[in-house]
Amino acid sequence: MKIVIAPDSFKENLTSLEVASEIEAGLRRVWPDATYVKVPMADGGEGTVQSLVDATGGRIIKCAVTGPLGQKVLASYGLLGDGETAVIEMAEASGLPLVPKPDRDPRRTTTFGTGELVADALHRGVQNIIIGLGGSATNDGGAGFAQALGVRFLDKDGSPITSPLGGGQLDQVHSVDMQSVHPKLADVSISVACDVTNPYIGDKGASAVYGPQKGATPEIVAQLDANLAHLASIIQRDLGIDISNEPGAGAGGGLGGGLLAFTTAEMKRGVELVIEAVNLDSHMQGASLAFTGEGRVDFQTAFGKTPSGVANVARRHGVPVVAIGGGLADDANGVFDHGIDAIEAATSNPMPLEVALQNARQYLQNAAERVARLIVMGQRMAGNTSEGTSKPLPTEAPAAAASAAPASAPLNGAHSAASFAQPIAQANKPVKRFMRAKRVQGLTRAAVELSRRRQKLHHPDT
Amino acid sequence: MKIVIAPDSFKENLTSLEVASEIEAGLRRVWPDATYVKVPMADGGEGTVQSLVDATGGRIIKCAVTGPLGQKVLASYGLLGDGETAVIEMAEASGLPLVPKPDRDPRRTTTFGTGELVADALHRGVQNIIIGLGGSATNDGGAGFAQALGVRFLDKDGSPITSPLGGGQLDQVHSVDMQSVHPKLADVSISVACDVTNPYIGDKGASAVYGPQKGATPEIVAQLDANLAHLASIIQRDLGIDISNEPGAGAGGGLGGGLLAFTTAEMKRGVELVIEAVNLDSHMQGASLAFTGEGRVDFQTAFGKTPSGVANVARRHGVPVVAIGGGLADDANGVFDHGIDAIEAATSNPMPLEVALQNARQYLQNAAERVARLIVMGQRMAGNTSEGTSKPLPTEAPAAAASAAPASAPLNGAHSAASFAQPIAQANKPVKRFMRAKRVQGLTRAAVELSRRRQKLHHPDT
Repeated sequence: MKIVIAPDSFKENLTSLEVASEIEAGLRRVWPDATYVKVPMADGGEGTVQSLVDATGGRIIKCAVTGPLGQKVLASYGLLGDGETAVIEMAEASGLPLVPKPDRDPRRTTTFGTGELVADALHRGVQNIIIGLGGSATNDGGAGFAQALGVRFLDKDGSPITSPLGGGQLDQVHSVDMQSVHPKLADVSISVACDVTNPYIGDKGASAVYGPQKGATPEIVAQLDANLAHLASIIQRDLGIDISNEPGAGAGGGLGGGLLAFTTAEMKRGVELVIEAVNLDSHMQGASLAFTGEGRVDFQTAFGKTPSGVANVARRHGVPVVAIGGGLADDANGVFDHGIDAIEAATSNPMPLEVALQNARQYLQNAAERVARLIVMGQRMAGNTSEGTSKPLPTEAPAAAASAAPASAPLNGAHSAASFAQPIAQANKPVKRFMRAKRVQGLTRAAVELSRRRQKLHHPDT
Repeated sequence: MKIVIAPDSFKENLTSLEVASEIEAGLRRVWPDATYVKVPMADGGEGTVQSLVDATGGRIIKCAVTGPLGQKVLASYGLLGDGETAVIEMAEASGLPLVPKPDRDPRRTTTFGTGELVADALHRGVQNIIIGLGGSATNDGGAGFAQALGVRFLDKDGSPITSPLGGGQLDQVHSVDMQSVHPKLADVSISVACDVTNPYIGDKGASAVYGPQKGATPEIVAQLDANLAHLASIIQRDLGIDISNEPGAGAGGGLGGGLLAFTTAEMKRGVELVIEAVNLDSHMQGASLAFTGEGRVDFQTAFGKTPSGVANVARRHGVPVVAIGGGLADDANGVFDHGIDAIEAATSNPMPLEVALQNARQYLQNAAERVARLIVMGQRMAGNTSEGTSKPLPTEAPAAAASAAPASAPLNGAHSAASFAQPIAQANKPVKRFMRAKRVQGLTRAAVELSRRRQKLHHPDT
């Protein structure tokens, strides 16, 4: 029996790999001879780099870059097991935790350091970059990020602005010049993990929605929004791209829009990106059972968070899926109507949160064992009688049935060891998206070179 | 599909029937057409009367009797659905909660009121009496109890002591006279729910072990123990019965010994008595699945508490059993090696106890649904493939397999309603036990009549 264990991390407590390992340990008490495939997962937010590095046997790169306030920070990003994919969380270089509370002012903060991380990855020759936009301290519309990659923002005198741009200085930009852009930028595939649809500007834009939590007063929000609108108009005039109302352009303080304007970036839901990066589909083939989980399972778990993504993949393969939460919210049973077949909690007694966190590993093991025992009970009941359920069987996946092998007879007579997910093979090939047509229509002189490279990338024969 | 739901109460929160009803409600979300048989259970301790009344469709009798300190108290006992069985908890008439803390003195407290409850039940013509010995405030060796049923304790002048005896007055007893004993006492079958093995006297006796928690100082403990030894010697001389070292004689402040000396009482584990009283065996026949539970499931749950008793019955019938706890202790998974197939907790998130108690009904429903979903998952896995478990199947009970009917086709086309357990049929027939032979050997004049009646009871043809 092959069992896929693909949980998210338990935020600020256990990494995804740790969660998967404890679940495996609990299941082994009941199914000692099953084959366990641990696939640490993430949703593009906190923990994504670690999970993908763990999932693919990659490594962490540390890199001194410009912090949100211009100070140097030591940021990490992931180089995955294929050696060709970098995973970058903007929070590492441009995140809110890097700015002391009294200093939080999104007029000053810049994404320059995130651009430097991308430059470092390009220097290492990666072919794919995954960028997570969560937790930013910035509202610079991606201008600082672009500067670090060679995009030149010229002032009213035609001189390039050399200091890292913050959201408060965007009104000084009079034109954009792509000529000195990093030569590898157009050749790399950039995927952006983005679960929000906020536009660049306006009432639902970056400044209005996310500015306040970064330290902006209503007056500052108005100034930031006006500045982003100004930058968007410059970009439209000089690059022929209208990012102002693109869904997701407002993510990461507008870095979403900057990525759309200055790179080949494609936006996807975070968990979908991770699913591709770890090749979850291929791991799911032939599995009899899948486990996922996150720190707290609630009704929202079924919608866009890691467990729902894992459940979608499992369903495609006809594999039943159990989500184990550190805890279950009162509305957690609602997920049953939305693709998750069963749930269980690590916490199983009234206790303070800190006790639950402290004992999470043991509790996870016990929870996994409880789940396994109930499944075995159902299997035995099905063996004893032909009844017991009033619901129709799910669609069977031929692959799942065909690959099933008796758990007590591991292949080659050897104990089937827990195996890590294999490194990425075909992950992250860019797909055509909403921006493509509009971009091509509106290309200006300054964007011609970038466009040519994009065409070459997508249609190598032309 | 027939499902038996036989939980204990969640102490001080939900009755057994309430627990069973919530479990049923949760299971119905998954198995709407199953047949549910709710059998409220208990272990002979707190809640036993209510559970047995609920289980058999009986009723509660209220009765003004003598409290532990001689005051009048309104005590309840149960008359079960068969109309022939009374269930009496000594704590109702002689319990520690009836004595304010400053007044706790086991030299003064008496079991007279418990004897009055038995007399009331005899007056109603019951054939069987179940007595629970938990929670007593007394150390009178059952002397007060016996007085209320007509046993006369004579002082040095040969005059009967008329005031209810407490443990401190037993040294005044010079002889025992059974001639005025309640005429129905010998004809009734008395079963004592007793889970402890303490003897009447000595280091492990009633006074030494339980006296302190009832308010006895070391000096008082010594006095009480000497008094019980004195009473035991009088009983041995006058009734020919040596109760001093009988296992369980020390339960209930020595009421266990008094019951053995003055009545036909048989001692049993509480849960076994309840299993007989509710006829759990017959309910288990043809069941596909059994649920039990208690407020907190821990390793000890597998040893003598309600869930273990239910599990024993289920195992005899080849029925898998799930225990649902309000919470699970850290060592709860240990029960898997001892007859309980699966466990689940109502509480599934870190929270204070009071929140768990407050929401216990909702949480129980959700937990039962989680369990059902996992069982269904196992059933489907067994349907999809022939593998999945590395353990041998349990022994199949022919009854369980034969009675299985498709859950979607209820009998007679009607919805199979939740049904209560039927009233007692053959419960509580006394069985020969350790006391029998010794008693018969040692009978004296005073016990001859009682002995004759016992013989008649057990061997009606002789």
